[in-house]
This record gives sequence, structure tokens and C-alpha cells, in this order.
Amino acid sequence: MTNIAYADLESRFRRILTLRDAGEILHWDYATIMPPGGASGRADQLAELEAVRHGLLTAPETGDLLAQAEQTGDLESWQLANLAAMKHMWAHSTALSEGQVTALSRASSACETIWRTARAEADFAAVLEPLEKLVELVREGAKAKSDALGLSPYDALLDEYEPGGRSADIDAQFAVLEDFLPGFLNQVLDRQAQQPAAIVPEGPFPEAAQRALGIQLMEALGFDFDHGRLDTSLHPFCGGTAEDVRITTRYDENDYSSALMGVLHETGHALYERGLPTDWRYQPVGDALGMATHESQSLLIEMQVCRSRAYLEFAAPLIAQAFGRSGPAWQPDNLYKLLTHVKRGFIRVDADEVTYPLHVILRYRLEKAVIGGDLKVADLPAAWNDGMEKLLGVRPPDDREGCMQDIHWYDGAWGYFPTYTLGAMTAAQLFAAAREAQPAIGKGIPKGDFKPLMAWLGDSVHSLGSSMSLSELLTRATGRPLDAAAFISHLKSRYLPD
Amino acid sequence: MTNIAYADLESRFRRILTLRDAGEILHWDYATIMPPGGASGRADQLAELEAVRHGLLTAPETGDLLAQAEQTGDLESWQLANLAAMKHMWAHSTALSEGQVTALSRASSACETIWRTARAEADFAAVLEPLEKLVELVREGAKAKSDALGLSPYDALLDEYEPGGRSADIDAQFAVLEDFLPGFLNQVLDRQAQQPAAIVPEGPFPEAAQRALGIQLMEALGFDFDHGRLDTSLHPFCGGTAEDVRITTRYDENDYSSALMGVLHETGHALYERGLPTDWRYQPVGDALGMATHESQSLLIEMQVCRSRAYLEFAAPLIAQAFGRSGPAWQPDNLYKLLTHVKRGFIRVDADEVTYPLHVILRYRLEKAVIGGDLKVADLPAAWNDGMEKLLGVRPPDDREGCMQDIHWYDGAWGYFPTYTLGAMTAAQLFAAAREAQPAIGKGIPKGDFKPLMAWLGDSVHSLGSSMSLSELLTRATGRPLDAAAFISHLKSRYLPD
Repeated sequence: MTNIAYADLESRFRRILTLRDAGEILHWDYATIMPPGGASGRADQLAELEAVRHGLLTAPETGDLLAQAEQTGDLESWQLANLAAMKHMWAHSTALSEGQVTALSRASSACETIWRTARAEADFAAVLEPLEKLVELVREGAKAKSDALGLSPYDALLDEYEPGGRSADIDAQFAVLEDFLPGFLNQVLDRQAQQPAAIVPEGPFPEAAQRALGIQLMEALGFDFDHGRLDTSLHPFCGGTAEDVRITTRYDENDYSSALMGVLHETGHALYERGLPTDWRYQPVGDALGMATHESQSLLIEMQVCRSRAYLEFAAPLIAQAFGRSGPAWQPDNLYKLLTHVKRGFIRVDADEVTYPLHVILRYRLEKAVIGGDLKVADLPAAWNDGMEKLLGVRPPDDREGCMQDIHWYDGAWGYFPTYTLGAMTAAQLFAAAREAQPAIGKGIPKGDFKPLMAWLGDSVHSLGSSMSLSELLTRATGRPLDAAAFISHLKSRYLPD
Repeated sequence: MTNIAYADLESRFRRILTLRDAGEILHWDYATIMPPGGASGRADQLAELEAVRHGLLTAPETGDLLAQAEQTGDLESWQLANLAAMKHMWAHSTALSEGQVTALSRASSACETIWRTARAEADFAAVLEPLEKLVELVREGAKAKSDALGLSPYDALLDEYEPGGRSADIDAQFAVLEDFLPGFLNQVLDRQAQQPAAIVPEGPFPEAAQRALGIQLMEALGFDFDHGRLDTSLHPFCGGTAEDVRITTRYDENDYSSALMGVLHETGHALYERGLPTDWRYQPVGDALGMATHESQSLLIEMQVCRSRAYLEFAAPLIAQAFGRSGPAWQPDNLYKLLTHVKRGFIRVDADEVTYPLHVILRYRLEKAVIGGDLKVADLPAAWNDGMEKLLGVRPPDDREGCMQDIHWYDGAWGYFPTYTLGAMTAAQLFAAAREAQPAIGKGIPKGDFKPLMAWLGDSVHSLGSSMSLSELLTRATGRPLDAAAFISHLKSRYLPD
């Protein structure tokens, strides 16, 4: 290869992404097993690692090398994709000054800390000032990125979580969902009310038995414990690295299904990480594509597969066995009814897959309005409650169950929310195409054989890394870019089967 | 402060040592809970962290800043000590070229890998060639450091583990021990043979009970589990960071005492780390002083305190209770007899405190001869066996129980061995002075009150970091530099009390 600048960039990004992996393990440790007194030292370690990475990424040489590598050319297609992915990381990192990055980080920490107390007391007034300060900095950052990237301020924020994601597309997709879901939800609830109620299994479900069951079902899906772990943390997540992927959950001894579904969800994330292309390890092109794609992999496993009637044919006996139970409550039909129960509610993280997109559409609209300057932070609570009433037909009793429920905005993560629903739509579109392409996928599920599905996901998603856009990936795998059709069709066949 | 170069150095070393801490946690994870498939990625992470640290330390600016800071002056005494400690790190890092560092690292890995198999088969011939190659590189490195530091090649190696340690001093100390120990050992063994044999408690001792007992005795000594952990690993060690210090052990259900004494030994290391000066955190002056001092803290706790008759007055009932046992085997006198049993043996890590120094003296003599060019690697087995016969009166049946037993030489750690016995001597001298200075220390032990001891160690050792040499530290704490008197006196009073 004659493109020496590109070769230099590969070395530079190898270091950046290896240090990122080091930080991932340190963060996992922080969230799971670190003694509390280690917090301040750990913050120092993570901050220094971040500073070193940021320094390598934003050094003037990195920009020079990117320009030289582009001019020189003579690159294979994956290298071109890698160069584009490098440039994406570089552009986002250099758009903000060091002062802006520090100010944002400080304002996020300050606001999040106050939010934790204020939320418990449903006291939006208490967090208003730090949130206003934070939003001002987020908007300044969005403006700087907007100038650097040639995107609208909101799209410039979104683009960091979802490379290539644009609000014009999302507006169109969400309009379809908003048109469909409220009426559909009424029909689903009507139908559900006419059905006999599901039998709720009574606890306790010992933590050890829940954990053993989780491990059993993870292994059935193909999770390799030689390359990963299952642990406990306050907030479940998928962390670690591609070779050592670590998922966490938390257990409720009265309700095994919350931990179990969480484990299966995180397993979907983990299988994506494990399936990323080893040839491109430590290069941006070898990374996961974006948050929508990542969420599509967790939702494909949790929602499309593991909450399906077919999966429960396989899993219901194992679940009953894990707790030494039997009887009608443990039959696949009853468990399926429980796992697909639909309910209007205030809280996003407790929402079913029918109402979840409405929670997301609300947040997306509001955050776009705030970033665009069309909605004041002080007016968020009222706008939230009005939106909930309009979209979901319920009005939160207070801001704890309203606009204070999610950490995202208070932690500076503006522009993230739409990726949840883009992920749900992507999951549905991929899964429909997978079953059509490989009949063995659908046949395998009730038998607990997920190899055909994982092989298809490996070829169609995991092994591609960031070598193409989500639109290109979906077109390659499903014949068309993202639309709401498969998701709506999935909801119809699952929730209104008659 | 007008010494801007010094201030820059503080920032630079803050980053270097914070990244070192990050590496410590990653190494702990590797040795305890990492899934096996994470090994290759973890090696990448640790290598990149090491490369970043090495780059920061050996960058031309670091040398320039050190020179400027020295010229500028205007430093407080702790800052002068910090500057000296910085220079020590810098001098060792810059003495070798990058090529030498890489070659040494590769040759160490290669030799160690072959050693693992060859040792099991007692096949020194199989490891001879890689060991010769490694030793050649070690000697080249020693020569380079010798030139840079103005020390003999052996002292240049020793100086990295034990700053200020010199073989001329060690020769003198070890000559005293060699003069004393063989005759003393005969007397001890004669006396022991005349005493009634100790009762060996029979297992099994469940791992969970051993662990709970370990935690109880760690807490009694002052180990704070808000700032540390106890876990399991193949080779026990003390790792982590000063705020999050993590010790490990391994359990044998037939013999609780090996894990327990290991835990108490590592607790000594851990309490030193925890007691390092917080004001100097992330600065070389705030680090532990050297390997002899570190080992003195583990041996002071394990050997001086926890194998004493006085300690067993406190611990014996707790040990019996932990396993639900009672009777004569669990009386303090019997446990004391078991914990102070002396035996000629082949294996250093199994040795008691009477024979241990003889194992170390042998290794020290041999490694000094190899580095000095007076002994060929091929002649190590014979020299070893002759030395064992002369010093300990036993001849190993094969090289597995002879010169192949320890990892150190095969892993490139030449110049490390003497620190074990310097540590034992230091421990005895410190503990004698402590009991004399504060009678409450001796009175507290049988009651399980270690606060007076820990306060004295905090003032006299832990809180000093690397602000003075071991000789200065000992003179400050005990009135004189290191000598063998206290160690010999300790051995006499414990093993020949009549």
C-alpha cells in the first residue's frame, strides 16, 4: 500500500480504540464490583484515559493524516469505509473546543446529581436552573457541530449516536407510527379486555435459580461464556469488549420475568458485539454501526424472538423447571399472554412494544423543539403532560412519572431517544426478511435452535461492522431502506391476530 | 511556585501514574475473573497502556523538564524527593532503547512459556536455549543501565526493584545471616524433635468458611472493604490501587492455614498501599518505597504478628469457631506450634522463616554470578544443587525442585530475589522498634487491638511514601539503618526460647 498516511491512521486508531476497550472494562468494574471507596480513583483513571484518547483523536496530525489519506487514495473499499468512520469520529471530537467539552461534562454531572434527588421528590423546579444551563451548553455544542458537519443542530447531535441519522427521515417514519398506533392501541386493549386474564405465577423466585436460567437461555442463543460474563448491577447494561462481553441484570425475587427479559435483551447486544468483524478489530469500521442498529439486535432477540409464542414452546418448560414449578401458569400460552401484555402507562422503561414508540415520539418531538429553540426548558413539564395525553391518553400525576423519569436529558444525552424506536423498526424489518430468506430460522425457534438465525444475523448485520450505512445494510439484507411496514405488520400479527 | 518545569512534571507524572492504576485494575481482572477468551484483547489493552506511559516517560520533553526543574530549584523538600523519584523512574525507562525493551519483553514471554512445560517435566535442557537468549538480553540491559546510572550491572537491575539497594550492603548483611543460620537451624530442628508433635487439624475446611474467616481477620487488622476486595486467583497477590486495593488467595479445603496465612500476608501489603500519603497521590513520591519495604509490611503482619503466640491468643478461638471445631488441636499453643514449624525443604515458597533466607541467599549469589559473567546459564543446575547442599543440607532430586521452581529468572526478573530477605530483616527491625516505642502495640495484639500498631506503621512507614530511602526511613523509625540483629534476635526468641 502506498497510502502511508492511511497506515499511520490505522495505528493511531488502533491505540485509541484499544484504550477505549480498557475504559470499557474499567467502567464495567465500576458498575458491578468496585468497592465504593474506589469511585474517585476510578473517575481519575477514566478521565485520563479519555483525555489521552481525545488528545490522540484531536491532535493536528490526525486531521493532516485524514486529509493526506483522502488525497492519496489507493485504498480498498473497507479501508475507504474505515477512513469515513475515522473522519466521523474525528469530526465530532474536533467540533467542540476543549473548554466546551469540559463545560458540558461538568454541567452534565452537576445537573444529573441534582436530578437524582429532585426526581425522587418530583420537584422539577429544583432541577430547572442546572438543566437550563446544561441545555444552553448542549445547544452551543449542537451549533458548533452544525457548523462543522453541515447539519441542523439537532441532526448534528443525533449524528453522534446514529451516524447518518437525519430528523427529516425520522419525522416521516414517526408520522406513520403516530398515525397508526393510537387507534391500534385502542383495538389491542379492547381485544385484550375480552380475553381471559393470564395467570400470574407467584414468587418467590430465588436469585440463584433466576441466574442459572438466564445462563441456560443465554447459552442456548449462542452466548459463549469463554468470551463473556453475566453479573449484577443497579442498571442493566452490556459492556466490556468484543472478546470479553459482559452483560448485567438485576433480580426481583417476586418477578423473574423482568430480569430474564433484561438478560435476553442484553444478550442481543452482546451477540452483536461478539459477531463484529475480527479482521477490523480496533478500527472504526469494525465497530458497531450506531445505536439504532445496536438496539435492533437487542430488540430482535428480546421482542421478535423471545417474546414470541414459538420461542415459549422451547423456553416455557425450561422456565418452569428452573423454579421447580408446573401447572397452567407455566404453559406457553399463559407465559406468552404475560409477556405480550399491553398497557397504557407513564414510564417508558416499563412500556410494552405497542406503547413504547409513543413514549419515544413524545421525547423526540420535545427534544427537537428544545434544541431548535421552539420550546423553553421551563415549559417541558406542561408540554410533556399534554403530549402524553394526546399520544397515550394518560396524564402523569407528577413530573417524577413525567418529564423527570429518564436520565438522558439531565445527563446531556440529547438526540439519543429516537434510536430506540428506529431500533425496534429495524429489528422487525430484519427479522421478517430473515425468516423469509431462511425458513430454517422460524422452524428452529420452537426447538431452541438459533443457529440459522445467528448465522443470518452474522452475515447480514454483525460481520459488517460500520462498513456501510444502516440504509445500505437494510437494503442489502431486506431489499429496502428502513420503513415502518414490518414493525406495523409484526404488531398486527402479534396483538390483533384474529 | 516559580518552578514551572516542576509543575509540568507533576501533571505529566499524574497522567503516567493514573494510567498505571488503570492497568493495575485491568491486571487484577485478568488474574481473577476475566473469561479466558478475553486474554488476547487484555494483552492488547495492557500493552497500549504501557506504551502510552512509556511514551510519556521517555519523551524528550520529560528529560528536558527534569533538567530545568533541577536547575530552577525553589522546591519544598517533598517536591525535591518527588523530583528524585521522578528521575529514578525516568532513568530506568530511558536507559534501554525501545528495541531493547521489546526484545526483552518478547524473550521473557517466550522463555516463560517454555519454562511452564519444561518445569513440569524437570527438563532444564528444554529451557536452556531460551533462557540463555533471555539472560544475554538481560545482561545487555544491565550493561546499558550500568552506564546510565553509574552502578554495577547487577546493582543497576536491583535498583529498579529496590531504589538505592546495593549488593555491597547486601553481601555484608547476607554474610551475617549465612554465618548464623545453618548452625541455628540445626539447633532449632534438634529442639523441635524433642518437643511433642503438634496435632494437625483434619479437614475438610469449606472454602466459604475459610473466606469468611479471612475477611474477619482482615477487618480486625484494619482492612476496609469499602476500599478493597478479597478474591480468588491461581497465584495470590495484592493488586488494585491505593483507594481500591484488591488481594487474592487460593483455598485448599484440606489445609485452611495456607490460604489464611496468605490472606494475612497480602493484607500487610494492602495496608501499606492504603496508608500511602493521599496528598501525594499519583506522584512518584507518594508511591511505595521499594520491594523490600513492601515485603517488610506483609512479613511484619504475617510473620511478626500473625504467627506469634500473642496473636493466636486472639485468633485461635475465632479460627476454631469459623470451622465449628474445638478441642486441643485448636488451642493457641498447638496452632502456634503448627504455624512456626521449621523444616529443611527444596521449595522457597513453602519455606518457614528460618530456612527462607537461605533459599534467597542461594538465588542472590547465583544471579549475581550470572549477571557478572562468572557463571554460565548451563551451569546453573549444578551450582544450585551444590549451593542447596551447602546452605540447607539438602540436594534436590531434580531441577523441578531445584533451579526451575521459581518463575523469576525465566520471566526476566533478575535482581529481585534479595528483596524478600531484606524485607524480612526490615520487618523484624521495625516491629522490635515499634513494640519498644509503644507498649500498647504488644499489649493490643492478644486482644485483637491492632490500632496502636497500625498507627505506628502509618507514621513510620506508610505515610512516608517514597520521600526518603529505606536507610533513612529505618534510621528515623528504629535509630539505625538495616542490619540483621533484630531478625536474628526474633528468630532466637521464637525458635529457641529456652
